[in-house]
Amino acid sequence: MTHERLEAQVRFILEVDKLKEVFRQTVCTRSRRPENDAEHSWHLCLAAIVLAEHANIPQLDVLRVLKMLIIHDIVEIDAGDTFAYDTARMAGQHDREALAADRLFGILPADQAALFRALWDEFEARLTPESQFAAAVDRYQPCLLNCSTEGAAWKRHGVTEDRVIARNSHIAEGSAALWEETLRMIRRAVESGDLARAKSGARDPN
Amino acid sequence: MTHERLEAQVRFILEVDKLKEVFRQTVCTRSRRPENDAEHSWHLCLAAIVLAEHANIPQLDVLRVLKMLIIHDIVEIDAGDTFAYDTARMAGQHDREALAADRLFGILPADQAALFRALWDEFEARLTPESQFAAAVDRYQPCLLNCSTEGAAWKRHGVTEDRVIARNSHIAEGSAALWEETLRMIRRAVESGDLARAKSGARDPN
Repeated sequence: MTHERLEAQVRFILEVDKLKEVFRQTVCTRSRRPENDAEHSWHLCLAAIVLAEHANIPQLDVLRVLKMLIIHDIVEIDAGDTFAYDTARMAGQHDREALAADRLFGILPADQAALFRALWDEFEARLTPESQFAAAVDRYQPCLLNCSTEGAAWKRHGVTEDRVIARNSHIAEGSAALWEETLRMIRRAVESGDLARAKSGARDPN
Repeated sequence: MTHERLEAQVRFILEVDKLKEVFRQTVCTRSRRPENDAEHSWHLCLAAIVLAEHANIPQLDVLRVLKMLIIHDIVEIDAGDTFAYDTARMAGQHDREALAADRLFGILPADQAALFRALWDEFEARLTPESQFAAAVDRYQPCLLNCSTEGAAWKRHGVTEDRVIARNSHIAEGSAALWEETLRMIRRAVESGDLARAKSGARDPN
């Protein structure tokens, strides 16, 4: 193995240290400061190994789930975080992130760059049981943090119940049990006033 | 599956959110603020999947490595972070952490609590190739961050080259290649003045 290969890998590990400075809308439960993408990614990995038994398929490849969760937000080093309910900014998001994926994964040796890019593409496409479960955890965790911080990010952005349900319903693709649990949380948040009810005319799909 | 089981799992996921508030001595490369345990754990997972090919054994169980890295610092929610070079505080560290492991993993359903505790015990004992590789990454990453921030934590605590070498030499148990790379970094840090030379009389074991 050449030393150049290890040097490229170390450059990548150092470059993605910047993920610790990409801040999200969700806040941490104890300090109420905004969560960053690196600690969010760790929290998803933790949630994935705890909740894997609730995936819709019994023989989930948990290693591939974890690899996707570890790298899924790295593109935000260049592309920035887009709040899940910011529909205007969501429009160009994938193109910005694809450019970021080219640059960032491109720091790695070519074979690894291709592997990491394939994992990110799989996560984005949400067509495999592993990517569907990874995406479920990625949607469930912000709901859990919002429900545990009196709806901090939801209130700040005026997000209503119907939008939370519409934006997160694909949790069911990865885990029906987790989606039921999410709906229970959402109902409790509405009852306690942490999440505003849908405006009249909007329909709860459940 | 009972709903109580999922509720216990959710309580655990929420409780360990506190890991985002446990701060370390190492600083992040961009902002130079102290790194926290949650983002550190993510960075180790990332480094592990990038560097797995450098493990001393070819058929490493990367999933077990990742599970250990995801949970290895959770005990610090109760026990606090102990700086690797703080020998006085290191003395009672394992006892404090074992109590923390009882409480924190004990939030989970009993079967999962036992699994997570076994992973943490394996990581601490460093007797398997997976725990040796996980521990190697856990020692390599702070060295890399120190070398990329002009030795910030080393300088603040007056740590010298001989202590860095002694404290991190077990990297070689998990990955000889990574230990060679660490020694190269350490030499460069000494040459550039980011790491103080060993006091006279101390011997470099290499």
